[in-house]
Amino acid sequence: MLLGLVRGTVVASKRSDELEGARYLLVEVCTTGGEGTGSFIIVLDVLGAGEGEMVLVSQGSSARQTAVSKNRAVDAITVGIVDRVYESDGVAYRK
Amino acid sequence: MLLGLVRGTVVASKRSDELEGARYLLVEVCTTGGEGTGSFIIVLDVLGAGEGEMVLVSQGSSARQTAVSKNRAVDAITVGIVDRVYESDGVAYRK
Amino acid sequence: MLLGLVRGTVVASKRSDELEGARYLLVEVCTTGGEGTGSFIIVLDVLGAGEGEMVLVSQGSSARQTAVSKNRAVDAITVGIVDRVYESDGVAYRK
Amino acid sequence: MLLGLVRGTVVASKRSDELEGARYLLVEVCTTGGEGTGSFIIVLDVLGAGEGEMVLVSQGSSARQTAVSKNRAVDAITVGIVDRVYESDGVAYRK
Amino acid sequence: MLLGLVRGTVVASKRSDELEGARYLLVEVCTTGGEGTGSFIIVLDVLGAGEGEMVLVSQGSSARQTAVSKNRAVDAITVGIVDRVYESDGVAYRK
Repeated sequence: MLLGLVRGTVVASKRSDELEGARYLLVEVCTTGGEGTGSFIIVLDVLGAGEGEMVLVSQGSSARQTAVSKNRAVDAITVGIVDRVYESDGVAYRK
Repeated sequence: MLLGLVRGTVVASKRSDELEGARYLLVEVCTTGGEGTGSFIIVLDVLGAGEGEMVLVSQGSSARQTAVSKNRAVDAITVGIVDRVYESDGVAYRK
Repeated sequence: MLLGLVRGTVVASKRSDELEGARYLLVEVCTTGGEGTGSFIIVLDVLGAGEGEMVLVSQGSSARQTAVSKNRAVDAITVGIVDRVYESDGVAYRK
Repeated sequence: MLLGLVRGTVVASKRSDELEGARYLLVEVCTTGGEGTGSFIIVLDVLGAGEGEMVLVSQGSSARQTAVSKNRAVDAITVGIVDRVYESDGVAYRK
Repeated sequence: MLLGLVRGTVVASKRSDELEGARYLLVEVCTTGGEGTGSFIIVLDVLGAGEGEMVLVSQGSSARQTAVSKNRAVDAITVGIVDRVYESDGVAYRK
């Protein structure tokens, strides 16, 4: 999984995922301390993540292993909203 | 998923996908604001995306989760035609 | 999918794919105009692609969605032999 | 698979993996000799790996091939705790 | 698939793959001519590849399409031991 920050949303009315009310997040990949890297990925939100929150993103077929995303044409979902990241020298990130 | 701009099409008469009338798009990966990055990917179109439009692309086995692409040897499809990209400081892209 | 040029073949008599007469191509990833990038990938040929031809390559589990490659331990196949690549300003590649 | 060093943990109370007591490791990709590369990946621990240990990480759908991770939305697990890495000129890493 | 050179082995006594006698190879990704690139990947050996040999590596779910690796948490296997690589201007590699 990778860590990212919710930076916005993507709206697409014409879609092939057959998902009603799908919310696609614009996620910026980030460091363990929560700094953006400038690299973005679009992620289906299944947790209600809010802007600025750090999320744990699961990709590939693993993104289809939730009730919402099952059999849907999505390759990335939010698998967690991060509370804290611990490194050996202490807390690297706190929500 | 990734964001890209439709830049053209790829025609291949000899294929192993057993898809009739398949339309392969030449998609340039783009920024959240719609600027091309110079990196290209070939994507099966299942939405009728037109040249210049920004599309949401799903890859891997997730690309086979539509009626058209099911069990086909394609690893990327259009999962959405993007209308707007919102970032915290406003609209980054508008169709 | 990605675009590549057939540059040669790879011969491996001891294999775990249980495929008889498999032909592995040495494919150089190329630009939309057909220029090699110096990056190579080995691809199972299911179309009879010849040296110098531009091929469309499908990767991952999607590479197993043909009669020949089904259930085989291959992660890349030729899904098309490219005839033409069209960009907005004309034909970028012609076979 | 890739080699990495356990550098910490990630805590996310709101999750979509439906796993109780899941332990997510912060893993730094490392060289064969055990030096960190500065690149991180978040990995579900199924082996009880401790901080500083070198782990073998399996990604993608293969990460779901254990009793714990089966059908779960995780795309990376610990498939081994590394004892030794042997290179032609001797032992490159010893636990 | 990619080409690599067997450079050593990785020993991990605590594992989640439930494979007895599994042999994990340290493989250095190489050029078509057999020169190492400095990039490494850990690969389950299902062919008995020896040190210095060039192997063809299959990744992702395709790595689970052999009798040994079926349903196992491994994401890379040896799908071939390379005898020769042919390029248009002759033999690029010979075992």
